[in-house]
Amino acid sequence: MRLTRVNSGLLDHFNQPGGQNIPLQKRVYDTIARAILTRSVGTGERLPSSRELAKILGIGRNTVITAFEQLHAEGFIETRHGSGTYVSARLNGNSKNYFGAAREDGSRAVRLAARASRYASVAASLRSPQKLTAFRINMPALDEFPISLWNRLGKSLLTGRGPESVGLLGEAEPAGYTPLREAIVSYLSIHRGVVCEPDQVVIVAGAQQGLDLSIRLLIDPGDVVWCEDPGFPGSVAALRAGGAEIGAVPVDKEGMDVEAAKRMFPSARLAVICPSSQFPLGYTMSLNRRLAILEWARRNDSWIVEDDYDSEFRYSGRPVRSLQGMDGGNRVVYIGTFSKVLFPGLRLAYLVVPRSVVTLFVNARIVAGRQSPTFEQALVQRFMTSGHLARHIARMRRIYSRRQQVLAEALRATIPGNHLQPSPGDTGLQLVAYLPRNTDDVAISLAAKQADLEVTPLSRMTLRRKIQPALLLGFGSFSDRQIWAGSKRLARVLSEQLG
Amino acid sequence: MRLTRVNSGLLDHFNQPGGQNIPLQKRVYDTIARAILTRSVGTGERLPSSRELAKILGIGRNTVITAFEQLHAEGFIETRHGSGTYVSARLNGNSKNYFGAAREDGSRAVRLAARASRYASVAASLRSPQKLTAFRINMPALDEFPISLWNRLGKSLLTGRGPESVGLLGEAEPAGYTPLREAIVSYLSIHRGVVCEPDQVVIVAGAQQGLDLSIRLLIDPGDVVWCEDPGFPGSVAALRAGGAEIGAVPVDKEGMDVEAAKRMFPSARLAVICPSSQFPLGYTMSLNRRLAILEWARRNDSWIVEDDYDSEFRYSGRPVRSLQGMDGGNRVVYIGTFSKVLFPGLRLAYLVVPRSVVTLFVNARIVAGRQSPTFEQALVQRFMTSGHLARHIARMRRIYSRRQQVLAEALRATIPGNHLQPSPGDTGLQLVAYLPRNTDDVAISLAAKQADLEVTPLSRMTLRRKIQPALLLGFGSFSDRQIWAGSKRLARVLSEQLG
Repeated sequence: MRLTRVNSGLLDHFNQPGGQNIPLQKRVYDTIARAILTRSVGTGERLPSSRELAKILGIGRNTVITAFEQLHAEGFIETRHGSGTYVSARLNGNSKNYFGAAREDGSRAVRLAARASRYASVAASLRSPQKLTAFRINMPALDEFPISLWNRLGKSLLTGRGPESVGLLGEAEPAGYTPLREAIVSYLSIHRGVVCEPDQVVIVAGAQQGLDLSIRLLIDPGDVVWCEDPGFPGSVAALRAGGAEIGAVPVDKEGMDVEAAKRMFPSARLAVICPSSQFPLGYTMSLNRRLAILEWARRNDSWIVEDDYDSEFRYSGRPVRSLQGMDGGNRVVYIGTFSKVLFPGLRLAYLVVPRSVVTLFVNARIVAGRQSPTFEQALVQRFMTSGHLARHIARMRRIYSRRQQVLAEALRATIPGNHLQPSPGDTGLQLVAYLPRNTDDVAISLAAKQADLEVTPLSRMTLRRKIQPALLLGFGSFSDRQIWAGSKRLARVLSEQLG
Repeated sequence: MRLTRVNSGLLDHFNQPGGQNIPLQKRVYDTIARAILTRSVGTGERLPSSRELAKILGIGRNTVITAFEQLHAEGFIETRHGSGTYVSARLNGNSKNYFGAAREDGSRAVRLAARASRYASVAASLRSPQKLTAFRINMPALDEFPISLWNRLGKSLLTGRGPESVGLLGEAEPAGYTPLREAIVSYLSIHRGVVCEPDQVVIVAGAQQGLDLSIRLLIDPGDVVWCEDPGFPGSVAALRAGGAEIGAVPVDKEGMDVEAAKRMFPSARLAVICPSSQFPLGYTMSLNRRLAILEWARRNDSWIVEDDYDSEFRYSGRPVRSLQGMDGGNRVVYIGTFSKVLFPGLRLAYLVVPRSVVTLFVNARIVAGRQSPTFEQALVQRFMTSGHLARHIARMRRIYSRRQQVLAEALRATIPGNHLQPSPGDTGLQLVAYLPRNTDDVAISLAAKQADLEVTPLSRMTLRRKIQPALLLGFGSFSDRQIWAGSKRLARVLSEQLG
């Protein structure tokens, strides 16, 4: 009898080893689909009834019915009124792929785009480890963030089924929630000397996305770009992904050496710089250099991306005006972020772009992911306009300033000067501590890792230039106790490594 | 006396019209900086003391001191011990740019990348208007979302200063918060027949970002890509931005016509399709076509991007298995999103990628913005693993199924069949309603806009193919009352337009 052959085949499939871990209904579905696609039952052939199959497999009939429904919806089987269930007569495909997971090796190399090679590697520092360890750089003090205030503001926004509340679940303008863009303009004008209108602000999912969008629009593959050396690995990764030729320009205490850049890479189309607080050395670009780079951009019809990633945290003197505010509004794309002044898990940042390219940037923002989350944008706006942001920044500035002093003091107290020379700066969440010449700072950082320390070798941030070996030590997110304990561990590591 | 000239110049600057709206301290700063950069005071020249200047300008001395500090920090001025404040002698830059905003026109065209032209336009439907109006497509019922449950879960996660809570302010793995990726794997395995491990899941900031990343890695500029015609404008925008040659392939009731695609565009490197619920027609790709496209991808070493944007909302039969689950795990990049099952303002979606390309996709995710927000990822994970997502989807499926029926009924009751033929489908948040042949559906939609209706012309979703004119009418987010009122307004518009 035909049905017997079919039934026994189904029973065999059903009882294959390993099946016990799969939900029952999926097992029934898989059993029948596999039987069809391996031609154990032919097209047009009759299947057992759901009642019969339930009996054979020793399971409930409803489970079989549900599996039949799915197979029907997917076109495997068809029902003929009054006469039962059949393998679809229209089935003519090649079945090699189906259930191929077991046979085809998912890790087999397949042909990718040539440009995919630009993503072959990104700096390890961009793939942060999960555990926060002293002395992670670029990290604000998360435990000082006013979580209950934040929750309270959030709850007051998203409450009940009123249209304002429900609207925060829906879409915002692609360029960003308008009240947030207005709040940012007012903040930037007062604190950063940025000159712009709300329609020039584009909210992005982190400064990194801002860099990525700028590079896509401002340069073509093969274009030369001035980069600070040492510099931020995130810019370098975005530039490589965008096909840029990296023009590594030396940095000194006045910031990027613009005259050297002009000599070394005269054809550059773009400069990516952190004038307020150079990453990672923390220097502020001098006025002369600022004027020189603006003049270069104007004369050469080139662009400047100003990455203003943590200018809020300046510990001596006042925050320095942005480069954007010194420009005529034509050459500078300004990037600001909430990752340091609020918290990095928020993923909110913003671009200020010249009016001539607003539409392009908004279009690129749409293509790259439509918009940033609506509710989070509204929450940040509320945090800003009710004065909490300014208060939080002022408070954090005091904390960070103190923590930098504590770190410098702890390092000097625990580590001899011929092993490490801390060089605290005016800005930021980390300091540079120089090692003796010819030390391998990568080796030191690996040894420190064994002592549960995260110290970032400066050489990992360099592009071409040989630079004095140093460690970048973050102080932003660590208590006095953690700073002292970490310094002592580092002292031991250094005395072992340097002898 | 020199100081008199300087002082009177400063006073003039200070009292310029419009200055009254600027914060006082910024006005003082601007006054001095402008005087220096326009050479009203020369390099090395002495400035009035803070006391003197405060008197001249009629303001408090502290305001002047603060402005001096900033000017000093920025390198405009220098102080010589015991002898006062001088314009920096080192200042040699060209000052043309400074305060140039008034002179340089920010809207002047500047040279952009050649590839920027790929962003010159994106479909109007991707720039959603702010106000939600019947019959917006692709929009879930926001007012049915369990906001208080969501708030409660959120509050239970982000509470106090414990390490778990504080950790949600920090960074997650770039590929995504690991518990969320695990929850997604379990969800996809049960509901979508997707076969994968957590390390193949990459969380992205919306399905649009998923498309964008895939295109960057899978094709090069000039490569041909099969697209459904009519199809989703977001894919088309991402493909254009990525430099693709769009291969517009006809769609019928079995989904994309794979045989036609092979004839028309034999060299294609990638196909972007919505097999579970074709956008915008709602058809489900047949099993034969699925097997054919998988076979094509395998033979040609090509790729398939499966955009599974709203497969959860199927109203007859059971959800159809994903194409990814039928593949050997090598050819299909699967995109799922929380925009429809939760809410679009959340901006969370995910890719499931073959194991061979996991590292590349994670690197591309890093370059495009590091990661998605940590707290939101944890909240969605909690919503999933506590069973709320499955319940919410089941509930919404019933609501949408009913709303589609209400809309079809309302349209049939209020609009004559020779004006509009609604064609409700098995899936999704909108239905297609056909207009008489040779009607201009764009003109109808513009007329409907005057009646406060958002009806989407089908022709706006077509690439090359002439198709019967139709309106896409969303029902997901509208009450019965809104649906009936909207249908009546649409009836009036159609009777005016079609006579």
